[in-house]
Amino acid sequence: MDRRSFLRTSALGGTAAAAASTLAAPAIAQGRITWRMVTTWPKNFPGLGVGAQRLGDRITAATDGQLTVQVFSAGEMVPPLQALDAVIDQSAEMSHGAAYYWQNKSVGLSFFTGVPFGMTSRELTAWVRYLGGQEIWDEIYDQFGLQGFLSGDTGTQAGGWFKNELTGIEDIQGMRFRTPGLGGQVWQRMGASVTNLAGGEIFAALQSGALDAAEFVGPYNDLALGFHQVCKHYYTSSFIEPGLATELVVDKAKYQALPQNLQDIIRDVCQAEYDQVASDFYANDPRALATLVNDHGVITHDQFPDSILEAAAEASMEILTGIRDSSDELTKKTAESFVSALNLMRTRTEGTDLRFLQAREKYIRF
Amino acid sequence: MDRRSFLRTSALGGTAAAAASTLAAPAIAQGRITWRMVTTWPKNFPGLGVGAQRLGDRITAATDGQLTVQVFSAGEMVPPLQALDAVIDQSAEMSHGAAYYWQNKSVGLSFFTGVPFGMTSRELTAWVRYLGGQEIWDEIYDQFGLQGFLSGDTGTQAGGWFKNELTGIEDIQGMRFRTPGLGGQVWQRMGASVTNLAGGEIFAALQSGALDAAEFVGPYNDLALGFHQVCKHYYTSSFIEPGLATELVVDKAKYQALPQNLQDIIRDVCQAEYDQVASDFYANDPRALATLVNDHGVITHDQFPDSILEAAAEASMEILTGIRDSSDELTKKTAESFVSALNLMRTRTEGTDLRFLQAREKYIRF
Repeated sequence: MDRRSFLRTSALGGTAAAAASTLAAPAIAQGRITWRMVTTWPKNFPGLGVGAQRLGDRITAATDGQLTVQVFSAGEMVPPLQALDAVIDQSAEMSHGAAYYWQNKSVGLSFFTGVPFGMTSRELTAWVRYLGGQEIWDEIYDQFGLQGFLSGDTGTQAGGWFKNELTGIEDIQGMRFRTPGLGGQVWQRMGASVTNLAGGEIFAALQSGALDAAEFVGPYNDLALGFHQVCKHYYTSSFIEPGLATELVVDKAKYQALPQNLQDIIRDVCQAEYDQVASDFYANDPRALATLVNDHGVITHDQFPDSILEAAAEASMEILTGIRDSSDELTKKTAESFVSALNLMRTRTEGTDLRFLQAREKYIRF
Repeated sequence: MDRRSFLRTSALGGTAAAAASTLAAPAIAQGRITWRMVTTWPKNFPGLGVGAQRLGDRITAATDGQLTVQVFSAGEMVPPLQALDAVIDQSAEMSHGAAYYWQNKSVGLSFFTGVPFGMTSRELTAWVRYLGGQEIWDEIYDQFGLQGFLSGDTGTQAGGWFKNELTGIEDIQGMRFRTPGLGGQVWQRMGASVTNLAGGEIFAALQSGALDAAEFVGPYNDLALGFHQVCKHYYTSSFIEPGLATELVVDKAKYQALPQNLQDIIRDVCQAEYDQVASDFYANDPRALATLVNDHGVITHDQFPDSILEAAAEASMEILTGIRDSSDELTKKTAESFVSALNLMRTRTEGTDLRFLQAREKYIRF
């Protein structure tokens, strides 16, 4: 029994999974099937929850209902952070979330969402589709009988909400800051006191004084949660989340048992949704930011002070070095591939895109 | 007879078009159909010609051959710049090219490819999908019985190949420069002597001395054409093509006669291909640039001198003002929508993305 079979059958306590997969193909050939998609997002969550629902609807529409996707928002079938396990234990066929939620299964998964000072949304797709990223991602998820597809991206997020303006690294010592994941580790190394809280709990913690600052997504999502009522200083550029990609994960055996054109449609719609979600954020973040500034008196800062950036860069490089030194071969391989692709693409980002944006900022007033 | 019917039937010299459309639906319902896609790209042209072929293949695959797309590269059925007319006169059902090739039909079409100092590839999708761009594009193409979809993007292109290094605006006076379209108008206003030549003719003109400089696409495409053998100076950031989007244009009546799920698949695959093509350029431009520098001794410059940028910005703003003052209402409306969306999104590009890229460039060495 190979590792994948072991993982699958042990999760189910038997060989039921293999039997289900074997039966899947003829059942599909005869007619319509319904797949359940569990998600990590609240219903109607701007950009991401809306995107998961739309992705399901687009698959249903493009297959003319031959593959009908039922979408369950966070908590409807399973709690958000059990979405991937629901696919592994076969209580759902698809999960929509972010790969870094599952870094306890494999640290390398973080790279397919985004890492501090890492890839932008376009660099990520170029790595995944052309520079070996998908193949490594497949190796990781193969261990769990899963197949992952990029399905959206928020673009570069905002740096966060702060009760007081930051003048330098000394201002963040002991600052109680809500920021999760590897980004949280970066702030922790710089001296902040980092905590994680679910999105819905942040506002109350800011209001009670349990938090001094919080980072969530960007204007489009943050506006609805009301952080501006407690924090007046909004740092609009994040160095810890230069992009945040979402994923659709499917049960690989069931996926491969689908007729080829249904497999293609799932892949095509995920790729289309990557573009759709990124466009949604790109159009709606600045609209929300205008509301925050014009209607709520928020003070924006487009960058953190240099001493914070410098310390953050150092902490980020240390964390990445730690991952590259991992004893887990697949984690090490993921990090090496990511860094090598990023270093290649930076010649384009910095020698072409960045120079254009700087020139446009300096000279153009339409 | 409305304008659209007039345009269509007069192109065919009768009412054959209407009859064909009426017949289309039942014919499709009974079985498989084949559509012809004419393109403006040479066969296997990196990124773009390859992308057109792949787009056709993906539609064929996702529809399980129910809609089979036959792809004709430039010249196979019609010359490249007659591709759109081939759809209008119904000798093909689809055309793959760039909207600005048809600016003689409507100046507003330029905006759906890219304009000097205009939108990046992500800003363009956000405008088209969320800020009113698609609706205006539909209005323009409705006049011709067509429907347009974004289908790819090169990202920000290179500035071009020059025999001599440029030290300032004085160096380009009378310089014989190959650069087409609105970008050519910008260089012309700055004092260059601008000519247009097909891609395949540029190398010989550089070699014979008929040209001093040439701009084509970026490293991925330029490498194959050998410009580096004649010009050693490569400016890697273009201000005239911050993005170049491709389009798939379909015969709208035939499109609307397709079953709904086939319409959806065409739309979904075009959107997926936008991401695929942009990723292809993002991965392969820097690979080609490394070859140009390491194997061919090309000298790169990541930006033009300030005096050129400043004059180019002024010329670009004048040209855009001219379009906004157009007496054609639809052209005016397109330009106004584009500028308004761009100004909105610049708050995000410049307040978030650009600041991240600058910080990463300054502090990170992975």
